[in-house]
Amino acid sequence: MKPVNVGICGLGTVGAGTFNVLQRNLDDIARRAGRPVKITHVSAREVNSECDLTGIKFSNDIFEVAKDPEVNILVELIGGTTVAKELVLAAIENNKDVVTANKALIATHGNEIFEAAEAKDVVVAYEAAVAGGIPIIKAIREGLVANKISSVVGIINGTTNYILTEMSEKGRDFADVLKEAQELGYAEADPTFDVEGIDAAHKLTILAANAFGVPLQFDKVFTEGITNMTTADVKHAEELGYRIKHLGITRRTAEGVELRVHPTLIPEKRLIANVDGVLNAVLVMGDAVGPTMYYGAGAGSEATASAVIADIVDIARDIDSPGLVPHLGFSVETKNLPVLNADDFTTSYYLRISVKDEVGQMAKIAETLSLNGINMEAILQKEAPEDDDLVPVIILTQPVKEKAMNAAIKTLEALPSVPEKIVRIRTERLDG
Amino acid sequence: MKPVNVGICGLGTVGAGTFNVLQRNLDDIARRAGRPVKITHVSAREVNSECDLTGIKFSNDIFEVAKDPEVNILVELIGGTTVAKELVLAAIENNKDVVTANKALIATHGNEIFEAAEAKDVVVAYEAAVAGGIPIIKAIREGLVANKISSVVGIINGTTNYILTEMSEKGRDFADVLKEAQELGYAEADPTFDVEGIDAAHKLTILAANAFGVPLQFDKVFTEGITNMTTADVKHAEELGYRIKHLGITRRTAEGVELRVHPTLIPEKRLIANVDGVLNAVLVMGDAVGPTMYYGAGAGSEATASAVIADIVDIARDIDSPGLVPHLGFSVETKNLPVLNADDFTTSYYLRISVKDEVGQMAKIAETLSLNGINMEAILQKEAPEDDDLVPVIILTQPVKEKAMNAAIKTLEALPSVPEKIVRIRTERLDG
Repeated sequence: MKPVNVGICGLGTVGAGTFNVLQRNLDDIARRAGRPVKITHVSAREVNSECDLTGIKFSNDIFEVAKDPEVNILVELIGGTTVAKELVLAAIENNKDVVTANKALIATHGNEIFEAAEAKDVVVAYEAAVAGGIPIIKAIREGLVANKISSVVGIINGTTNYILTEMSEKGRDFADVLKEAQELGYAEADPTFDVEGIDAAHKLTILAANAFGVPLQFDKVFTEGITNMTTADVKHAEELGYRIKHLGITRRTAEGVELRVHPTLIPEKRLIANVDGVLNAVLVMGDAVGPTMYYGAGAGSEATASAVIADIVDIARDIDSPGLVPHLGFSVETKNLPVLNADDFTTSYYLRISVKDEVGQMAKIAETLSLNGINMEAILQKEAPEDDDLVPVIILTQPVKEKAMNAAIKTLEALPSVPEKIVRIRTERLDG
Repeated sequence: MKPVNVGICGLGTVGAGTFNVLQRNLDDIARRAGRPVKITHVSAREVNSECDLTGIKFSNDIFEVAKDPEVNILVELIGGTTVAKELVLAAIENNKDVVTANKALIATHGNEIFEAAEAKDVVVAYEAAVAGGIPIIKAIREGLVANKISSVVGIINGTTNYILTEMSEKGRDFADVLKEAQELGYAEADPTFDVEGIDAAHKLTILAANAFGVPLQFDKVFTEGITNMTTADVKHAEELGYRIKHLGITRRTAEGVELRVHPTLIPEKRLIANVDGVLNAVLVMGDAVGPTMYYGAGAGSEATASAVIADIVDIARDIDSPGLVPHLGFSVETKNLPVLNADDFTTSYYLRISVKDEVGQMAKIAETLSLNGINMEAILQKEAPEDDDLVPVIILTQPVKEKAMNAAIKTLEALPSVPEKIVRIRTERLDG
């Protein structure tokens, strides 16, 4: 069968991985795709010594690939959202299918890009944009297609999971672990995207669209990072049988869709609570299948390349037809369910309240929570640290609307016996 | 778009689940498939009161569905390998695509069935045959297509996993738990297929073909059940930091492919060691992606239906073309790598040797192992049980060829100080 010609734009970590895995596993990939998959054009600012470009056309201008009439599939691995967007739209304009690993691009410009692609009957595939090598987009759009999905919950950022794992296992401080993660290359020099949850919010946006048939709406994601996490809270949570993970959570409720990224306590018995280090995992709840979970490397050169190539082969297997699977899982118009404000989230809470060691304080806290309709599930009074006369009181609550909790915290923080800000971390029991 | 017409044969557990989920999620499924998916014909020995058949053609003779010119996709959910095979071949003969959940049928007659399907350019899909609702066939054939897969290791039988979990968590005997599992409906009245590992061997056969591009060769699977498992061994394994799981293991080695089903010690830190109860999980190792794992319900009415319907939608999305994905993952001729005999497996071992409490016995055991090239990794001498004067010695070894272990055990069992058969359980460290 006629080969499919691939043009790769970008030879950074993922570009080099894609190039090398495609070359290394050439024969097996052809046997699986039913036709040869051939890299015919590569473009990057400079060549990468890890890639043997012998016999392959090389351009410094990535737009040369978009214009190359020989290229069937353009692979966008340059990152960013400005030039990358122009490049993808140029490729679509020239009737090329596109594969990208760019989560920021899809989360922020996906609606426009998919519309352009559908007008031209080409495919823009992005499996590598979420959870690296884990085939989670395929699982949701194809494997679980029978299900009404009620929630998707994931550890979808390896950097924050590595930091939280080290804090938990070695009792180390956030800042200390972050510094090491940067030295090891697990965190960027500017770690904001990871530790503030923006990267996870990009991925969650994409997961929610595919799970529920809503448009991509990155700007509506409630996002909280891990920069305020303390080892004390990690430890208290563990005493109560919980682990703290930085999760992306999207859930379909009667009132609308929750889109949120934040540190979360989950019971240590849950499988996903035991996903440690830089690994990712995504837990999907469907009405027919129940809970299913997908686990693996969420980043890295060849792991991400694995997903990029899966997309290339999907397209190659069906190169003469328009895409079979709708870009965001659902064809026909997308239903836009309302996205809930944080106020309307329903979740349980872990609270750490530093209280003056006076008679009657516990009762006052309990009363305030109760007046706001909040039921306690566990309460734990710790010894005051040596250099402090405030007693930490740890509370786990039952599920409640976030606005009730906001009101309760406001009242509590106004008490003279509660001089410090209350620490609150959302808690999810999960089901699988 | 024109609807796709589905004929369901069999209204047992999975048939009823498929019928009901397809009807319940009709709208979402149509939005995802890009066209309506309509059940037009149902056949079973008798109607099932759980299914509302109003307006749907019903036949008692399943072959009526294979002959029905309106039906595009025949769904075989009658089970067994004789009539089911005839039915599937009749549907293929009449140019119908087929979806089946029948692992025994695919594992034992798949090569012939796929050949017939390819001759007619129709698809025979079988996602539901392995690990129920977990989209593992799709993950291997499509999601991980970039990878040279080196191993697939799975908990692929819920009954045995439930029994082992109960033995571990509650210290209960095999026979006792089996009886309860039968009462709860987790185990069949005749549990042989499950507890002897035959069901897992069927599934492993299918996984290996898709992972490595070898033919289906059920008769070559080395199969050992869990009927001899004792709570003593479960407990000793846990003291050493291991859990015992009944695993299907297929691995590509330099000499050939290992196909084996047996109880296995795995380190408790591994995620798959924490998959408990009736749940399934499959760990796949690829050269690019590293380890990935897929977890969920391996059986049950609607969980299995989820996979059946995923196959139906895959076909519906592309109803006018022949299948895009080769039946066993690889197109062109299948490479047949040799399948190794058990003698040539390389694995670590847990041994329990009951020894007379005499001086020098430990040294004799150590010497015998060493003479056979077997290195010990841990050794644990337990107290003799009250009613016994034999001392249990527990040994963990490093990896070695099975034939070396067979020789060592033969020598040890010939010693007068070792009057009982040695218990040996294979041990895998795994990587993810």
